[in-house]
Amino acid sequence: MASVDRATAPTYVYDQSEGSAEMRGLLGGKGANVAEMQRIGVPVPDGFTVTTEACVAAMDADGAWPDGLWEAVLDRLAALEKRTGRRLGDPERPLLVSVRSGAVFSMPGMMDTILNLGINDAAVRGLAAESGNPRFAWDSYRRFVQMFGEVVLGVPSDDFEHALSQLKRERGVALDTDLTAEDLEGLVAMFKRITEESAGAGAFGDDPREQLRLAINAVFASWQNPRAAVYRRANDIPDELGTAVNIMQMVFGNLGETSGTGVCFTRNPATGAKELYGEFLVNAQGEDVVAGIRTPRPIAEMEAALPEAYHELVATMARLEAHYGDMQDIEFTVEQGRLYLLQTRTGKRTAQAAVRVACELVAEGVITRDQAVQRIDPRQLDQLLHPTIDPDAPRDLLATGLNASPGAGVGEVVLDADTAERRGKAGTPVILVRWETTPDDIHGVIVAQGVITAHGGMTSHAAVVARGMGKPCVAGVDGLQIDREARTIAIGGRVLREGDTITMDGSTGEVLAGGSPLVPPRFDDHFREITAWADEIRRLRVRANADTPEDAERARGFGAEGIGLCRTEHMFMSEERLPSVRRMILASDEADRLAALAEIAPMQQGDFEGILRAMDGLPVTIRLLDPPLHEFLPSLLEASRDVERIRGHGAPGDLVAAEALLARVKELTEANPMLGTRGCRLGLLFPEIYTMQARAIVDAALAVRAAGGDPRPEIMIPLVGFAEELRRMRILVEEVVREETERAGVDFPIQVGTMIELPRAAVVADQIATEADFFSFGTNDLTQTVLGLSRDDAEGKFLTQYLEDGVIDKNPFQTIDVDGVGAVVRMGCEQGRAVKPDLKLGVCGEHGGDPLSVGFFHDVGVDYVSCSPFRVPIARLAAAQAALGASFKDR
Amino acid sequence: MASVDRATAPTYVYDQSEGSAEMRGLLGGKGANVAEMQRIGVPVPDGFTVTTEACVAAMDADGAWPDGLWEAVLDRLAALEKRTGRRLGDPERPLLVSVRSGAVFSMPGMMDTILNLGINDAAVRGLAAESGNPRFAWDSYRRFVQMFGEVVLGVPSDDFEHALSQLKRERGVALDTDLTAEDLEGLVAMFKRITEESAGAGAFGDDPREQLRLAINAVFASWQNPRAAVYRRANDIPDELGTAVNIMQMVFGNLGETSGTGVCFTRNPATGAKELYGEFLVNAQGEDVVAGIRTPRPIAEMEAALPEAYHELVATMARLEAHYGDMQDIEFTVEQGRLYLLQTRTGKRTAQAAVRVACELVAEGVITRDQAVQRIDPRQLDQLLHPTIDPDAPRDLLATGLNASPGAGVGEVVLDADTAERRGKAGTPVILVRWETTPDDIHGVIVAQGVITAHGGMTSHAAVVARGMGKPCVAGVDGLQIDREARTIAIGGRVLREGDTITMDGSTGEVLAGGSPLVPPRFDDHFREITAWADEIRRLRVRANADTPEDAERARGFGAEGIGLCRTEHMFMSEERLPSVRRMILASDEADRLAALAEIAPMQQGDFEGILRAMDGLPVTIRLLDPPLHEFLPSLLEASRDVERIRGHGAPGDLVAAEALLARVKELTEANPMLGTRGCRLGLLFPEIYTMQARAIVDAALAVRAAGGDPRPEIMIPLVGFAEELRRMRILVEEVVREETERAGVDFPIQVGTMIELPRAAVVADQIATEADFFSFGTNDLTQTVLGLSRDDAEGKFLTQYLEDGVIDKNPFQTIDVDGVGAVVRMGCEQGRAVKPDLKLGVCGEHGGDPLSVGFFHDVGVDYVSCSPFRVPIARLAAAQAALGASFKDR
Repeated sequence: MASVDRATAPTYVYDQSEGSAEMRGLLGGKGANVAEMQRIGVPVPDGFTVTTEACVAAMDADGAWPDGLWEAVLDRLAALEKRTGRRLGDPERPLLVSVRSGAVFSMPGMMDTILNLGINDAAVRGLAAESGNPRFAWDSYRRFVQMFGEVVLGVPSDDFEHALSQLKRERGVALDTDLTAEDLEGLVAMFKRITEESAGAGAFGDDPREQLRLAINAVFASWQNPRAAVYRRANDIPDELGTAVNIMQMVFGNLGETSGTGVCFTRNPATGAKELYGEFLVNAQGEDVVAGIRTPRPIAEMEAALPEAYHELVATMARLEAHYGDMQDIEFTVEQGRLYLLQTRTGKRTAQAAVRVACELVAEGVITRDQAVQRIDPRQLDQLLHPTIDPDAPRDLLATGLNASPGAGVGEVVLDADTAERRGKAGTPVILVRWETTPDDIHGVIVAQGVITAHGGMTSHAAVVARGMGKPCVAGVDGLQIDREARTIAIGGRVLREGDTITMDGSTGEVLAGGSPLVPPRFDDHFREITAWADEIRRLRVRANADTPEDAERARGFGAEGIGLCRTEHMFMSEERLPSVRRMILASDEADRLAALAEIAPMQQGDFEGILRAMDGLPVTIRLLDPPLHEFLPSLLEASRDVERIRGHGAPGDLVAAEALLARVKELTEANPMLGTRGCRLGLLFPEIYTMQARAIVDAALAVRAAGGDPRPEIMIPLVGFAEELRRMRILVEEVVREETERAGVDFPIQVGTMIELPRAAVVADQIATEADFFSFGTNDLTQTVLGLSRDDAEGKFLTQYLEDGVIDKNPFQTIDVDGVGAVVRMGCEQGRAVKPDLKLGVCGEHGGDPLSVGFFHDVGVDYVSCSPFRVPIARLAAAQAALGASFKDR
Repeated sequence: MASVDRATAPTYVYDQSEGSAEMRGLLGGKGANVAEMQRIGVPVPDGFTVTTEACVAAMDADGAWPDGLWEAVLDRLAALEKRTGRRLGDPERPLLVSVRSGAVFSMPGMMDTILNLGINDAAVRGLAAESGNPRFAWDSYRRFVQMFGEVVLGVPSDDFEHALSQLKRERGVALDTDLTAEDLEGLVAMFKRITEESAGAGAFGDDPREQLRLAINAVFASWQNPRAAVYRRANDIPDELGTAVNIMQMVFGNLGETSGTGVCFTRNPATGAKELYGEFLVNAQGEDVVAGIRTPRPIAEMEAALPEAYHELVATMARLEAHYGDMQDIEFTVEQGRLYLLQTRTGKRTAQAAVRVACELVAEGVITRDQAVQRIDPRQLDQLLHPTIDPDAPRDLLATGLNASPGAGVGEVVLDADTAERRGKAGTPVILVRWETTPDDIHGVIVAQGVITAHGGMTSHAAVVARGMGKPCVAGVDGLQIDREARTIAIGGRVLREGDTITMDGSTGEVLAGGSPLVPPRFDDHFREITAWADEIRRLRVRANADTPEDAERARGFGAEGIGLCRTEHMFMSEERLPSVRRMILASDEADRLAALAEIAPMQQGDFEGILRAMDGLPVTIRLLDPPLHEFLPSLLEASRDVERIRGHGAPGDLVAAEALLARVKELTEANPMLGTRGCRLGLLFPEIYTMQARAIVDAALAVRAAGGDPRPEIMIPLVGFAEELRRMRILVEEVVREETERAGVDFPIQVGTMIELPRAAVVADQIATEADFFSFGTNDLTQTVLGLSRDDAEGKFLTQYLEDGVIDKNPFQTIDVDGVGAVVRMGCEQGRAVKPDLKLGVCGEHGGDPLSVGFFHDVGVDYVSCSPFRVPIARLAAAQAALGASFKDR
């Protein structure tokens, strides 16, 4: 090995006594916390830690260890041997150690662990003599051979399990514990044979030091195993952090009735209640708890079984919680009456528990309100806001689709909206299952517990409507087949009949057979308390995206400070309005179109009155019509089929009408509707539509005002790319405002602004700002255009594949793509504010409800975010965390 | 009127003697040139000019004149009256003036002119006495009343023409000139009545000074008339320049046989030949020439008719051409033997003439080569490169569509590709008329003179294929109906039968009835000379977009220095390959797909060998497969119909196949294919496709090399948005290159780069540059994504409306949108070069062939542009002009 300049090489290995909680980045969570416990006098087994830097250096060198690392490990091992008076492999006083991963962020169960390292043919006899328990010694050896074989040498675990089962059959026993010391000695020999058959002769070896080197190497490598990579992606943990490796003297909970092992929390992680919570087993190792062979006992019963250790544990728990200022999750072992803590870490908890613990720690004076606000993972709050499937209930998973709208639902399968309506109104809970939904299905969606579709993505009709209604939706379920004639569906290889009960979870995208029990949403006083604290801290305002008075009211209940995006197109889609809307689209001239618009106008005004009343005193940003007109017509395929059907059997008059409709559908159908005649392009081509909408808004506001209300509408022009578009639409709107307010004899100014949802709009935001009172970044469409991908075509297709393959880390429709879309948003903000420093800036894409994205928007200086009503509390918390200078991702 | 501080007010009016050619911006082209002529002693009538600044000031004040303007006009008028010894409205020695517009850039016929101003009931008698010609005097008066009535007071010209016709009927004469002085005196009275009936009593007045004020005002206003606005848009003239107004003493060519008027060019504007070219009339005014009542005589005949004036004119023409250094277009009048020049300007000319004149002026030592290069408007060169309809032939216009591919064609209407092929191969010229074309029509397109489609835009299949083949195409002809059963088409209100002859012009989008004579393309020695000079000047390299060996050869003939974009998808579309391509797409697993790819691979290799041979020694950038796979399958509608058709009548096996096809079509059909699974997304999902293509490229290059050639392929990955995409595709390509070159035992590095065609790619170009040997900006797609508009859905629809309504100035697909897309390109260049200073940068969108855009790309620092073969000479010239520091737009 190359000589090393020890003066300049980094320190790759630390004794536990050298570490502390602050060294988490270098020592990993486990290493830092064990060191911290040792530092403050909590009993822990002795040991040392190989740093994350060593792991990163090895990864960067394709696995080759950095110079000096192995020598440092040997140094520290020698010191440990000296301190304990034991040696690896020693036939008299053998030292056994555990080799465990310990990442900066906890990744439970994702990486590899090796226990009992140091045992070999010599040491096993020393261990037997020392413990007076040969069975224990040989069992420890057997476990080591198995773990080392699996983890380091890649021997299939089945090979070992098979040999063990066979031996038990031969001996006629049911449990491992019924095997004798001799049996286990034989098993050790057999396991070694199995290992060498699989990994090659001599692979196992008998030198514990070499085995230690291989074990450390295996832990390094396990950072990059697929399940760890998946876990990191799901939890936003960077791939390049690497793991530390903790080498710690083994302590044994299986040395008789004065020994034991357990896990406990300082508070109840399910409810947050301040109570002892945990489990233990006498005469057992941690593995046994996990294996489920023996049922662990409640921690309170430990007082009788191991009284001294119990009292020391309870005191230590209180001490650790006070020391860390948060609920702890602790692993411990009692070896012959003596308590050792193996690990302490911040306890994972449900959203409900997180909120309660944070509030009570404030009440107890342990943490500040700011700290409490920072303690909550806003991503978890979803759990509080929708019913969820009882996590303890059995699950019969049929299929998984896109988690298009959160919440869970149980009901009978129905295959069309009429059936849904009939059964739903009769009181039967139903789940509407469709290839995809259309505006014609609305009445079915309204009564259903949830919607499942075979096609469509996160912005499909079903998904948008369901989110708007706060109903669960699972979209794009791969392989879902619907047979409307047989009234059956095929899903996950099974066939269900209409009327069969299923369960769906729109938060996870899962569809289960049968009716699972649901847990109702939780929204308690602790939650109100902590969001109220958040409101005092945050700078970012939080509005909601809401299209109906009901949504607006719900949003206000969740603390929305206005509406950031009120879409007007859904108002056009309801059954009784669609005929007028279609008449408008099919109008042959302006007069005809104006007549149809006159039918729609009073309905629109009514919509706006309800929304403005619900948001009395708060701003309501109303976006004028955005989607291409063909969205309100049947598809080309449908219209073609109608013509052919009528041609065969219908009346000549019907044929003329159907052909006219087909011709208009053909004319309006677009190759890429996302990039077609929509937004202000419609307003410029058919100014009478925007004029009608503007008039309905102004008249609604004047009516609400006349009734003593305080309406605050703002009019938003969509899809602007050129300042001239906005200039012209602004003139149109201002003319209507002037006419209507003059007629009413009042002075009532209304702000006019624009969506920034095209790259060009952000690039020339300085030009556009001169015509705008506000910008609202439409980050959904901006993501589609900046990345050049259609959400409907990407999710469930190549985008999903990209996430699986690690081409990208995060779904850019969930968390804003900071380098790309984020840079464009930043450009728009800077350009806009450069010419108009007080320009109001908002965000109305779905990113407004995503905590990581909210942190970005705070940094970039926008004034408000707007999100779906259910996500308003999440955004409030995330905004407060951002204001505190550290968004949740930094924890 | 407000008092004016004359010390600070700008000078709004200049005497001709104060001006010069350099003052064109202030005095307009006409005013500056007349002043210049006066300055160098060429005889011109005396006068003064109101500046463009005055016009702009009046426009900015909604028509109100700036303080001091009117006083200045009166001052200059008084001085003119003093110099000429005449006065407006004087009964003895009346001064008559013309009031003409004169913009900075020539806009012939677009704005208004008033002649003979100064005449009234008193002055007409003075004019009659002085000239001894009462008929002349009353005719002058009649003309003034008519012009003033039309231009200033808005009287419909029909009203005057009607009265004149009636009078001629009453008198029993055919020509105006047959009317007597008395007739004309009566007509003056009648014209005044007509005027006051239309414009109100007293509207006409009798004060020439007030009439002058109104006339100047009318010329100001005519800057903003619709036809002028349209002309400016068509010629890239800014709206805010305004026009100057020239007030000049009238001279009369209709004072007898020693008077006359004419127009002449210093060289032949059609051919560029150095010869006298022009026309004149004795005893006539300019109007008479235009009215077509008398046929003008060739200018050479003037030597006999007006010998002195003729010789003075010839000498003056030579002097003016030498003075201005360019071919002049001159208007003159001879008043009783005395020559006056009324105007001189740079003569408009055909592309052929422009090239010849520039070359010959260099040969004559008048201008430098640099100047000659700057003299050519590259936009005009299209004329030289394609046949055009003889401009002198009669035109029977049926309809106008999108000018999708330039050039003209004549042939018989055929309605399907098979008929086209049959008749075409039999030697009949045919024009293929289709709703739209598909890959199945290729054999018809190949034999046709051109293609006309009812649907589709500039990137429709027909347009792309036709441009690729250099054939004319008119796409999206509104109202074109095709009746395949009756074998007729309805177009422009007429019905044509298959076999009827039509003419099409893909440069203008026009479709004409019957067979018009065509003028062949001109590509002469002068042209070769001037493009050779351009090549010495330019820094930008010019490559061509070419997909076949034939295109590559043609491009090389036009001077292309390589291929900047070789698309591989068209190679997949030919009839004999499509079955293999479809088999690949329908493959149920990778093995099946590999088998289909193996069928395609040798064809691909053959394509590449041909192209690399044609471009031997020059770089060839080959883009791997880009379009979504469903482009190679039938449409959803077609596939659905097939299933229904076969369900009724077909064999069960056929039904299974058709249903499988339909299922795959459904799976692959996208809501927004522009933003779907295409480009490198395909490469990442189906790496075997890109692997096959990369291997075909490398093997083709090795084969060409083995045969002694110098192939220089570069591999381009399309639609990259994330550096990681390019990194993975680069690894794939480099692996193939390594395998193939190792097998061949040669060292043959191939550059790998990417298209920058998504906004994100430009924003994170620094990240992408680390993986790229070159960038090629795909400005077509970049325009679509930055502006959020699909070219297919925008052109002929809202984009066309935007251009007509002036929401935008230029079609962003023709000339790059500098503020939006241009800024994104600039960002990409800067970010890329920031991390890799020697990064090769190119442009391969159609903008590469647009002169204004080429100027921008030069400025932004790219290394090369790539355009369609026919546009290569245009790009070479534009690149040279850009290098000379002034692109053509500055002229």
